[in-house]
Amino acid sequence: VRPAFQIVERCRKLAAHTDEPGFITRTFLSDAMRGVHADLRTWMQHAGMTVSIDAVGNIRGYYAGATADAPRLIIGSHLDTVPHAGAFDGILGVVLGVELVELLIGRRFHFAIEMVGFSEEEGVRFGVPFIGSRALIGDIDGTLAVLAGDAIRAYGLDPAKIPDARVTGPTLGYLEFHIEQGPVLESLNLSLGVVTAIAGQSRCDVRFEGHANHAGTMPMNLRHDALAGAAEWIGAVEREAVAGRDLVATVGRIDARPGAGNVIAGSAAMSLDVRHVDDAIRTGVVARLLDCARQIAARRGLTFTSELRLDQPAAPMDAGLTEVLAQAVRAGGHSDHRMASGAGHDAMIMAKQMPAAMLFLRSPGGISHHPDESVLAQDVAAALETGVHFLEQLERTHG
Amino acid sequence: VRPAFQIVERCRKLAAHTDEPGFITRTFLSDAMRGVHADLRTWMQHAGMTVSIDAVGNIRGYYAGATADAPRLIIGSHLDTVPHAGAFDGILGVVLGVELVELLIGRRFHFAIEMVGFSEEEGVRFGVPFIGSRALIGDIDGTLAVLAGDAIRAYGLDPAKIPDARVTGPTLGYLEFHIEQGPVLESLNLSLGVVTAIAGQSRCDVRFEGHANHAGTMPMNLRHDALAGAAEWIGAVEREAVAGRDLVATVGRIDARPGAGNVIAGSAAMSLDVRHVDDAIRTGVVARLLDCARQIAARRGLTFTSELRLDQPAAPMDAGLTEVLAQAVRAGGHSDHRMASGAGHDAMIMAKQMPAAMLFLRSPGGISHHPDESVLAQDVAAALETGVHFLEQLERTHG
Repeated sequence: VRPAFQIVERCRKLAAHTDEPGFITRTFLSDAMRGVHADLRTWMQHAGMTVSIDAVGNIRGYYAGATADAPRLIIGSHLDTVPHAGAFDGILGVVLGVELVELLIGRRFHFAIEMVGFSEEEGVRFGVPFIGSRALIGDIDGTLAVLAGDAIRAYGLDPAKIPDARVTGPTLGYLEFHIEQGPVLESLNLSLGVVTAIAGQSRCDVRFEGHANHAGTMPMNLRHDALAGAAEWIGAVEREAVAGRDLVATVGRIDARPGAGNVIAGSAAMSLDVRHVDDAIRTGVVARLLDCARQIAARRGLTFTSELRLDQPAAPMDAGLTEVLAQAVRAGGHSDHRMASGAGHDAMIMAKQMPAAMLFLRSPGGISHHPDESVLAQDVAAALETGVHFLEQLERTHG
Repeated sequence: VRPAFQIVERCRKLAAHTDEPGFITRTFLSDAMRGVHADLRTWMQHAGMTVSIDAVGNIRGYYAGATADAPRLIIGSHLDTVPHAGAFDGILGVVLGVELVELLIGRRFHFAIEMVGFSEEEGVRFGVPFIGSRALIGDIDGTLAVLAGDAIRAYGLDPAKIPDARVTGPTLGYLEFHIEQGPVLESLNLSLGVVTAIAGQSRCDVRFEGHANHAGTMPMNLRHDALAGAAEWIGAVEREAVAGRDLVATVGRIDARPGAGNVIAGSAAMSLDVRHVDDAIRTGVVARLLDCARQIAARRGLTFTSELRLDQPAAPMDAGLTEVLAQAVRAGGHSDHRMASGAGHDAMIMAKQMPAAMLFLRSPGGISHHPDESVLAQDVAAALETGVHFLEQLERTHG
């Protein structure tokens, strides 16, 4: 388990590169990302990789195959974080992949391995997630290039070269290691989970507008309190999700203005996040919730507006590559528990262009997106061993 | 109504003295206050008053009575504003009082009139409201003198002389003209309202703490969502206030952290503002709402904490002086509608030391603390006429 401890230590070291001292907060191409890139470059080179940073800020390490025209296996996860994050979400998958390649030194497979540390998965900086993986499959439109252009140039990169980030040439597929970020594996007393599909997501920005007024002089019956309307709707969102099956719906962000204790809120802007593996169920829930908001607004004399920010279909993983992964899990003596992912991952984007597979590691306490996020060294060792079996099985199959 | 138009014009003129160009923002003894004082000094002198500025920056105009030992009637309101204010909150009462005295020129009553333009009512600069009126009743402690000392000296005044600002000698009472800052008079189609009491206020800072977690991977039944708990409580606050009589309760500020759309909120901090003219009712409501929050927290596996920030008792106006004011309103042919004030005013402070009475003028649209704040010339004329009747009635009663 010595490599497993090194992986955990490296994740902790990368966590020190933060936009906000005292917390782990690292957004798309912030200054803190420079430190992460510098450390990873050293480790990747030590593992025998050739390192580059593409135009959207993905760090890419290339470990050559036995022949120059060898197809590529891509292994990756993300390096950015949510605000006040933990040390393992995303990062672990990158550091674990680098360690896996380091274990191989001297061995050449009939395929090359490209390790990718994606620069933007969470979507915190611009409200647009998956910029890193979308660049790899060529799914970056002009709008996004303009939106992120200044940040890209400030990092010393050239947005005009975004098309060059696209993966070309033959690939075997994509593999992602990631913490579960939920309580399911722990509740089953399992180290690992084989992901069968990633739930679809809807994200909306919504806003109630009323009238800001004096909290002492405006009688209750004459108010148009945007925050009171927002609170009623948050309750409705929760009830809808609780009533559903394998459905989650969340209001995580609220901004009520003007935001003074003695002034009735004139506006309340919020986020809505809805996820389900069945796209029809998910879009139906969103439609019902927006309709409910309109009814609340009408009854309270508020206006309601919403903007759909993300409508991401569910993404099934590749059946064949997932079977290789499940075999590798069993080869290590572990149970190949199959499960859906409620979180979005870069694997969902990569799956649009190539076979993708994903392995979950147990999250102690189910805690993620929080400073207490952790991982067990024994589970990291199990994942690493699974990785070795996976590569060997691929070599046997395609060699 | 020519005097009424002059009053409105003068308020608009004073509004041009601002700390922030493009807005009306004038805090305690800011440079902008010098222009206000210069204009008022001219107008007060023109009305036959002797003008001085006391050590906390109140401008005071003295209109002598028939005899040197005549008791004093104090008429006042405030000259400072909230940020991005309107032109009439406070200011109108001062300008209207000066006009009232100007109408009297040549007449001497058995009482003197002291007109006061209070320098700080809103509490914006130091977070401490009512500095001007508190100086008049001798309620300035050493802490406040230190807090405001630099500002006072910078204005060319001497904080050591704050005790001299205190009103000594016989007084008949205090009268304040003020816009309602609410929609009640407008909804009743009335120009004027006779204030019977200023509501007491409770202000609390409250906080729900739960567990921040991933919005996609944490099943609904295992969540400890601080914002969902906060939303449930905001609904309870609203229901409690709606069910009460002449009760207002407001959550105007909310801060949910970490505040990302894909993260369940781990904490939600809010303000609570409760106002009622009956202190027992008010404190009972606050206790019930905090108890309700604790129950919500217990049921949801959250923690709840609260801190009482203000516990301001209600201030009844003086029954005798209020009756004189009501008669004066009726003498002008207006309805003497009695009402409580949900907002705090200098009259609340002055009432601690002398009989106080207060007249509200209708606020079009109920709008205040906003650039759209306005007043109708016909209502200003009605208030001015009420002022004349009030003085004449006082003269008859005490003459």
